[in-house]
Amino acid sequence: MTSAAPSLPVTAADVRAAHERLRGHAVRTPLLEVPALNAAAGGRVLVKCENLQREGSFKYRGAFNRLVQIAPAERARGVVAWSSGNHAQGVAAAARDLGMPAAIVMPSDAPAVKMDNTRALGAEVVPYDRRRESREDIARRLCAERGAVLVPSFDDVDVIAGQGTAGLEIVEQACGTPLDQVLVCCGGGGLVAGIALAVKATSADTAVYAVEPAGYDDHARSLVSGRREKADTSRESLCDALLAPSPGEITFAINQRLLQGGLVVSDDEVRAAMRFAFLKLKLVVEPGGAVALAALLAGKLPTAQRTTVVVLSGGNVDGALFAQVLADGR
Amino acid sequence: MTSAAPSLPVTAADVRAAHERLRGHAVRTPLLEVPALNAAAGGRVLVKCENLQREGSFKYRGAFNRLVQIAPAERARGVVAWSSGNHAQGVAAAARDLGMPAAIVMPSDAPAVKMDNTRALGAEVVPYDRRRESREDIARRLCAERGAVLVPSFDDVDVIAGQGTAGLEIVEQACGTPLDQVLVCCGGGGLVAGIALAVKATSADTAVYAVEPAGYDDHARSLVSGRREKADTSRESLCDALLAPSPGEITFAINQRLLQGGLVVSDDEVRAAMRFAFLKLKLVVEPGGAVALAALLAGKLPTAQRTTVVVLSGGNVDGALFAQVLADGR
Repeated sequence: MTSAAPSLPVTAADVRAAHERLRGHAVRTPLLEVPALNAAAGGRVLVKCENLQREGSFKYRGAFNRLVQIAPAERARGVVAWSSGNHAQGVAAAARDLGMPAAIVMPSDAPAVKMDNTRALGAEVVPYDRRRESREDIARRLCAERGAVLVPSFDDVDVIAGQGTAGLEIVEQACGTPLDQVLVCCGGGGLVAGIALAVKATSADTAVYAVEPAGYDDHARSLVSGRREKADTSRESLCDALLAPSPGEITFAINQRLLQGGLVVSDDEVRAAMRFAFLKLKLVVEPGGAVALAALLAGKLPTAQRTTVVVLSGGNVDGALFAQVLADGR
Repeated sequence: MTSAAPSLPVTAADVRAAHERLRGHAVRTPLLEVPALNAAAGGRVLVKCENLQREGSFKYRGAFNRLVQIAPAERARGVVAWSSGNHAQGVAAAARDLGMPAAIVMPSDAPAVKMDNTRALGAEVVPYDRRRESREDIARRLCAERGAVLVPSFDDVDVIAGQGTAGLEIVEQACGTPLDQVLVCCGGGGLVAGIALAVKATSADTAVYAVEPAGYDDHARSLVSGRREKADTSRESLCDALLAPSPGEITFAINQRLLQGGLVVSDDEVRAAMRFAFLKLKLVVEPGGAVALAALLAGKLPTAQRTTVVVLSGGNVDGALFAQVLADGR
């Protein structure tokens, strides 16, 4: 890096400030070391369990860090977000904790369990027809009508700083163990950007990788080409949480500078990782939450004699799908 | 208590000594607090995750604490145990870690996955016919032939002290939060005895309860009658890990003095708790490991405005059974 390199839109100091804001609100999720996983890797593996975060994914961190910075006088007008899953629940929970109204624009064919969970957290669910309506237009109209604040799911400096608190915890919980590499799932790139900011601030030599599902490897390709590539959004994927159409503008500005590269896993590799988590880690991990573990288990990069951090980003999976994944392994 | 009360066969100092021995060997499992569970209880709930312990249950603690105290000169002759499940894997793992041979007497119709796991840990599996042979006789004969040490699954002072280290961690991890009550699963009573020793040493007012599955409520009845009652071992139960025929001699001497009482849960209440753990805690819990959570969720004792610790003792459940339990909830 030369001194001419432009400064990043989010800094490690922003992540530390978010960490203070989240104290007593987000769960400090465990960083586990499991002998069976060390054996599989031939090295040390530390597992950051964001599936054990509030509402079952890391999303609460970024949502709370964004919402808590809305001026008290503006809070009564509430927040609006669009999401079919984890961001919806993270925003709804943070809004409830701060006494704010929340409206979440969700596809009318979203899984009932996700809509029910979002409503159970006190949010208003605004359904829309995915084939005929634009969720962005609906959300912006609601914001204009209500004077509410739009909360993006990844391309926002406060959201990225909030997600980065998971990385700060990793560094603290590793207690000085040198971390060779960190594997993080990647949809829009907010979690991996935040974690990279936090980890590389104290450990510049640690390699941070974005892990994506096959077909949605837009980050991996963008990191090679140097410009924001698009995913083939017509492709099916098990990883419903990671189907962003391209890297965010802010997230890519960070990830381009801080990431080592991208890794890509197949649906079958994801299923195998979910079964490994069930059998050996005793953890429930959703498909999108299992891609980093899948990359490690499938040998997408060397792990022997190294210390690798794997982030399990969420556990919001339907019972029927989970049972099917377990059955596939028999 | 008068000064004439006989001293207990295991002391809090024994648990502290075990804690030192286990350092760097057992996993310091997390004590989690989950808002959804607090809401269900109307108070604070702290969840001790022994399902995340090595080999998926608390059993490694007691096994290691017993085996590490075998004199180096005797280690080559190995250990023998009988078990169809978690104790088998705990002993096998501790023996491997200490470079000792282990033979586990297991019923020839035990689930293949449990026999395979035990063998994968390097132990010799000695199958026996449950209808025609005595596992105790086979184990004692092996010990005599080999000069090996028998490792009981619960009625042993070192095993009890080892299991108690989970209780010591609970106290440390609660960071001074006053604990009103602690719910622990109970088969032979080793885990609850060890935890009661550890917790009551620093918090005499904390009520510790043994939780048992319906039909195997021998501890609950024994605590009332004051003598070791027998379970109806002809009854079916989902909780394969908790089917001990009666309280142990040593465990009951401790539990009679330290426990508040016993709680009993049905198989359906256990299934509901397993589903809650899947949906809200994102944890895999086996039936026997879920009884304490089941007691809390089914309202077997008041939890409003109290702080309750729930111990999840294991997560070694077959995928097919787990899928069936998830399906039962739909």
